[in-house]
Amino acid sequence: MSTPSLLILPGDGIGPEVMAEVRKVIDWYGAKRDLSFDVSEDLVGGSAYDKHGTPLHDDTMAKAQEVDAVLLGAVGGPKYDNLDFSVKPERGLLRLRKEMDLFANLRPAQCFDALADFSSLKKDVVAGLDIMIVRELTSGIYFGEPRGIFEEGNERVGINTQRYTESEIDRVARSAFELARKRSNKVCSMEKANVMESGILWREVVQKVHDEDYPDVELSHMYADAGAMQLCRWPKQFDVIVTDNLFGDLLSDAAAMLTGSLGMLPSASLGAPMANGRPKALYEPVHGSAPDIAGQGKANPIACILSFAMALRYSFDQGDEATRLEKAVEQVLADGKRTADLLGEDGAQPVSTSEMGDAIVAAL
Amino acid sequence: MSTPSLLILPGDGIGPEVMAEVRKVIDWYGAKRDLSFDVSEDLVGGSAYDKHGTPLHDDTMAKAQEVDAVLLGAVGGPKYDNLDFSVKPERGLLRLRKEMDLFANLRPAQCFDALADFSSLKKDVVAGLDIMIVRELTSGIYFGEPRGIFEEGNERVGINTQRYTESEIDRVARSAFELARKRSNKVCSMEKANVMESGILWREVVQKVHDEDYPDVELSHMYADAGAMQLCRWPKQFDVIVTDNLFGDLLSDAAAMLTGSLGMLPSASLGAPMANGRPKALYEPVHGSAPDIAGQGKANPIACILSFAMALRYSFDQGDEATRLEKAVEQVLADGKRTADLLGEDGAQPVSTSEMGDAIVAAL
Ligand SMILES: CC(C)[C@H](C(=O)O)[C@@H](O)C(=O)O
Ligand SMILES: CC(C)[C@H](C(=O)O)[C@@H](O)C(=O)O
Repeated sequence: MSTPSLLILPGDGIGPEVMAEVRKVIDWYGAKRDLSFDVSEDLVGGSAYDKHGTPLHDDTMAKAQEVDAVLLGAVGGPKYDNLDFSVKPERGLLRLRKEMDLFANLRPAQCFDALADFSSLKKDVVAGLDIMIVRELTSGIYFGEPRGIFEEGNERVGINTQRYTESEIDRVARSAFELARKRSNKVCSMEKANVMESGILWREVVQKVHDEDYPDVELSHMYADAGAMQLCRWPKQFDVIVTDNLFGDLLSDAAAMLTGSLGMLPSASLGAPMANGRPKALYEPVHGSAPDIAGQGKANPIACILSFAMALRYSFDQGDEATRLEKAVEQVLADGKRTADLLGEDGAQPVSTSEMGDAIVAAL
Repeated sequence: MSTPSLLILPGDGIGPEVMAEVRKVIDWYGAKRDLSFDVSEDLVGGSAYDKHGTPLHDDTMAKAQEVDAVLLGAVGGPKYDNLDFSVKPERGLLRLRKEMDLFANLRPAQCFDALADFSSLKKDVVAGLDIMIVRELTSGIYFGEPRGIFEEGNERVGINTQRYTESEIDRVARSAFELARKRSNKVCSMEKANVMESGILWREVVQKVHDEDYPDVELSHMYADAGAMQLCRWPKQFDVIVTDNLFGDLLSDAAAMLTGSLGMLPSASLGAPMANGRPKALYEPVHGSAPDIAGQGKANPIACILSFAMALRYSFDQGDEATRLEKAVEQVLADGKRTADLLGEDGAQPVSTSEMGDAIVAAL
């Protein structure tokens, strides 16, 4: 098998500095585990706009289509707030998701033992929490047409369209059921079938996929508002949650925050298998570009490093090496190393972004 | 001034039993404070469907348009799960909201001191919390056309449309700013302007209303996913939140759950002023119909009683009497009276729905 290829898109804000730490990890794997990657790097988001006038150059898009996996830092920042919608940093990310057809966004919401005190939730509510949100990522109101701001009578109207076809729902439901089988075998599907017809179709298709091909998995349905409530009340009731693009955006962010481990959480966005059998894939931390702390060595590189761990698992068939990396992270946390975002009020000294990266490499 | 009129729609599940307790409170006001209401009662939701084959009879709709205020219990239940979309219990409620044009849904998320331990959040995160979510209630994806499930090629597609006109955004923004002036003078507006054009228009109009007519109010904007996060992290950063129908549905439910006081939270849905100067208005608890405990005397009537307090304040210009009723509720809680939903693990005996109602009347 040829050397697997990896495209790195550091992006904006803290993206470049956390990605530098991932580079150290990648180098370690090359040197110590004989696991090399053909790494290339390019621009996305505001940094791409600054250079090319577009948040994703066509050449970058083409490269992303060819590689085995893409690893992205973060996009956006106040500098770009007043740009036209069509060239905002976020459009680069959304174009990648859409054109690579990355329909299944896997967002683990996991509470790291060493950080349970960090949550705004009571310790018993979050300690040991480990759920997986599967968010549909290429359709729904993010991409539906018609969309835009139109004149109507003597005023303007803003329009977006939620649209889901049966096959779009079918394939993401399958991803959720497959994942559940490797976990606690339980899926909860969330929509607003009491208010939206697209939610009715969603519920029906998920149920059908279940009944036909995954009858062994426990399936429940919940309205998304009740789901938001239940996530806040007792998140451990869930194993895998499957939901649409927009609900997934809010619910996965809320769930991530609840764990208290926001700066720690990775994500994977997967598409259909390529010719070589690997799924199209993009990995990125759940956190944003945090422009307020960019360039100060304060950022926590763990979410981005764990995103690379997900790449090892889902793209490169290196589940054991992924586990090794995850254990190294846990080790470093257990040793008491903390970046500034993970500090409580006990006056401990934070380590820098690069010290954290070094510590993880040392623990490997 | 003629006797103010009140239409009571108990609805389904625990609706009728909590409403019976509100009746006691209304009777007390008539007998002891010379504050009488011309009360009529009718059906909504599943109970209306059972009798009329529709979740809201046209006569009931007409009555709702004429009275000074509507007080609703709750709608829905598993018995009606397989009904056609068009006659589901929820459609009755949605029709009331739409035809009465109740565009501003006020949802206080308040943590009652006596119940702070009840939250899944740490006590210091929620104690004293008092925020107000203003949710747009008559437009957006709940009502936009086109909508439905259609054939397309050889599969079906589910479609809903998010639609907001400038004037729809303008009026709900004004409600939020007016409320903020009576509170801590701070509004945070939430949308997904980074992804949705309807969100761009939302942000622009809210900003314009602010700049032109409410420059004294502190205004900020937040993406709705970040808003969900921040509500979970540190809800006390907010005073008034204004957002659209769908985001408001999820965010207000999450906020309500976070307070630990879910069975306690009322809501008001207000429209434009009628000829007599009163706004069209519907009041209802935030909680649902709880079919699992219906008819057992276990339900907590406080949210419905506090909804009547909101009616006193917003429809009947009886702010002092509203405060009296709210104080009576606090008194009863401080005395340790708890319905089953409010019990911790200390083995205390719950009071029944009707004992709770009696205690509140006694405290008045
Ligand atoms: C940056 C933004 C476009 C994006 C989204 O809304 O999907 C982000 O919030 C996310 O969840 O990955
Ligand atoms: C019952 C349902 C239609 C309703 C809604 O979605 O608006 C409810 O969840 C609410 O928030 O009042």
